Amino acid sequence: MASKGIIALDAMGGDHAPASVINGANTAAERFPGLRWLLFGDEAKIAPLMKDAPLLAGKADIRHTPNRIADAERPSVALRTGRNSSMWQAIQAVRDGDAQAVVSGGNTGALMAISRHILRSPPGIFRPAIISFFPTARGETAMLDLGANIDCQTEHLVQFALMGALFARSVLGLPKPTVGLLNVGVEDVKGNDEIRAAAHRLREGGFPFVFHGFVEGTEVTAGAVDVVVSDGFSGNIALKMAEGTAVLYTHFLREAFRASWSAKIGYFFARRTLAQLRNRVDPRRYNGAVFAGLNGVVVKSHGSTDAFGFANAIGVAADMVEQGFMDEIRKECERLNWKTETAQQAPSV
Amino acid sequence: MASKGIIALDAMGGDHAPASVINGANTAAERFPGLRWLLFGDEAKIAPLMKDAPLLAGKADIRHTPNRIADAERPSVALRTGRNSSMWQAIQAVRDGDAQAVVSGGNTGALMAISRHILRSPPGIFRPAIISFFPTARGETAMLDLGANIDCQTEHLVQFALMGALFARSVLGLPKPTVGLLNVGVEDVKGNDEIRAAAHRLREGGFPFVFHGFVEGTEVTAGAVDVVVSDGFSGNIALKMAEGTAVLYTHFLREAFRASWSAKIGYFFARRTLAQLRNRVDPRRYNGAVFAGLNGVVVKSHGSTDAFGFANAIGVAADMVEQGFMDEIRKECERLNWKTETAQQAPSV
Repeated sequence: MASKGIIALDAMGGDHAPASVINGANTAAERFPGLRWLLFGDEAKIAPLMKDAPLLAGKADIRHTPNRIADAERPSVALRTGRNSSMWQAIQAVRDGDAQAVVSGGNTGALMAISRHILRSPPGIFRPAIISFFPTARGETAMLDLGANIDCQTEHLVQFALMGALFARSVLGLPKPTVGLLNVGVEDVKGNDEIRAAAHRLREGGFPFVFHGFVEGTEVTAGAVDVVVSDGFSGNIALKMAEGTAVLYTHFLREAFRASWSAKIGYFFARRTLAQLRNRVDPRRYNGAVFAGLNGVVVKSHGSTDAFGFANAIGVAADMVEQGFMDEIRKECERLNWKTETAQQAPSV
Repeated sequence: MASKGIIALDAMGGDHAPASVINGANTAAERFPGLRWLLFGDEAKIAPLMKDAPLLAGKADIRHTPNRIADAERPSVALRTGRNSSMWQAIQAVRDGDAQAVVSGGNTGALMAISRHILRSPPGIFRPAIISFFPTARGETAMLDLGANIDCQTEHLVQFALMGALFARSVLGLPKPTVGLLNVGVEDVKGNDEIRAAAHRLREGGFPFVFHGFVEGTEVTAGAVDVVVSDGFSGNIALKMAEGTAVLYTHFLREAFRASWSAKIGYFFARRTLAQLRNRVDPRRYNGAVFAGLNGVVVKSHGSTDAFGFANAIGVAADMVEQGFMDEIRKECERLNWKTETAQQAPSV
């Protein structure tokens, strides 16, 4: 499919911005040659970088913004004072229809607060949730919510299941994904009331995915399902424990290969396959957390990533635009006859 | 310190019982020569195994019990009908003062239900919690609750912190452990009301541990604290995600070393150091989940473990008996002027 659409970039968000953002966009432009770009930020800093980004030539417009939201800024302050920032204006471009997606490596809390304020949720979705994906034994698995919603009720979990499935369809390319609810056991009686009621609702069917039932952490990493649904508290903890364990094992392995001359010789012979393994689990490959459930595609990049990582976050946004994620959400909510709960539409900050 | 005390063993609990239990006790008896043993189970099956357990000679009594609680038995049924089982009688021995600790590789839910019913909690502890420990970058870290309490209030989390710290002292040998509360971020505003109130209480001090504050999953595996406190829902999910990720990386590594001839040669040279790494993270080394907060030491072994793993679960129980874990809990609860909440003393099954 020919790529199309316009991506708004917060060119000032991230530790190595704007260079990592511009270079990342140039890398992404190779995979998505049909995309156009809106670059929000300090024109004096962005313009000189464009000569190193030949694939953006004729496809990118710089929109000067005087301010940048600091990484340590509180979301409530950013919401009050951030109007002239690169982040705000990039989100506003999605609201105004000038772009279909925004990607930022800036302050996560501010990005969520401003996105909720400007974009709101489509009818039938009560709250946005954070989705990301990571490697498992059978490929890649998406998980949500990763921290936007500390307390979740049954309806939220059911809505997360839909959003996660449509994400898996558009970004992981799975036509009918399997969805599991993260729990402390697989039996029906396990977990709290909310999660048991959510399982009951999901078992009734009628969704564009296959509901697998409850899954435990060991099944998640084994790749038992394509999408894992959780409240934002447990989901965030689960993801960070997995990340931490991956770092720990890499650390143990590095220590082991330094432990003796024999081990060093072994490393020499195995170095190519170990490099492939490192590449397979490279966090930059899985960069790009989606704030799903807003009127527009919002993707958060890790702030510390480089151009390669930023390009992957852009790739997630581009896939969602190309595959019509927003239309799918709206269509499914309408088909399921889900209604807006207006009281929860207002941002919580 | 000369080991002393009596350990009651559910000789019929576990996939390879009673052989794994008797052989495990024999292995543990080498490290704890002063211990005596009560072996509960089918005498006709246990007696022939004793000839292969020379270190138990003269120190072990077999107590015949006609029944065994099935692995699939519901806890409520086990509680009604399990009185003549090896598990029940082993727990009863602790209640009667015939033993100071019980170790079982049987049905987890039944073990918790019967232990709560028979042993109850000491004054000041509202609910038992499940503790285990695992390898981190700086050594070993204990975590609780791992699944006994799906919903936790502030008081429970504070009590878990005390139990976890006394566990780390007696089993990990840390005189003044550091304790962290598992959360989605380290800032004061993160998490739900219960966890923030627990942090507030723990910051007031007066405890036999150092309160570190909130920890995220990535800090847990880095070994930022000696004890991680969590509700049983998130704690169970965190542990299983870590276990699953460890299995996944072992799987990736095995695949990598089979990928080419060069990698196979590398494996040949590195095989000794890789075996040491496997040994370092061997789950059998960390076998033994403690049901803390009961009047007596109750340790659950993995049902599928072998004699080596079962010996380690016994080692946890023996350390707790030797180091006077129960006395410490009672003394600290009294010193802190914690009172029993009688309404919560009755078992929930």
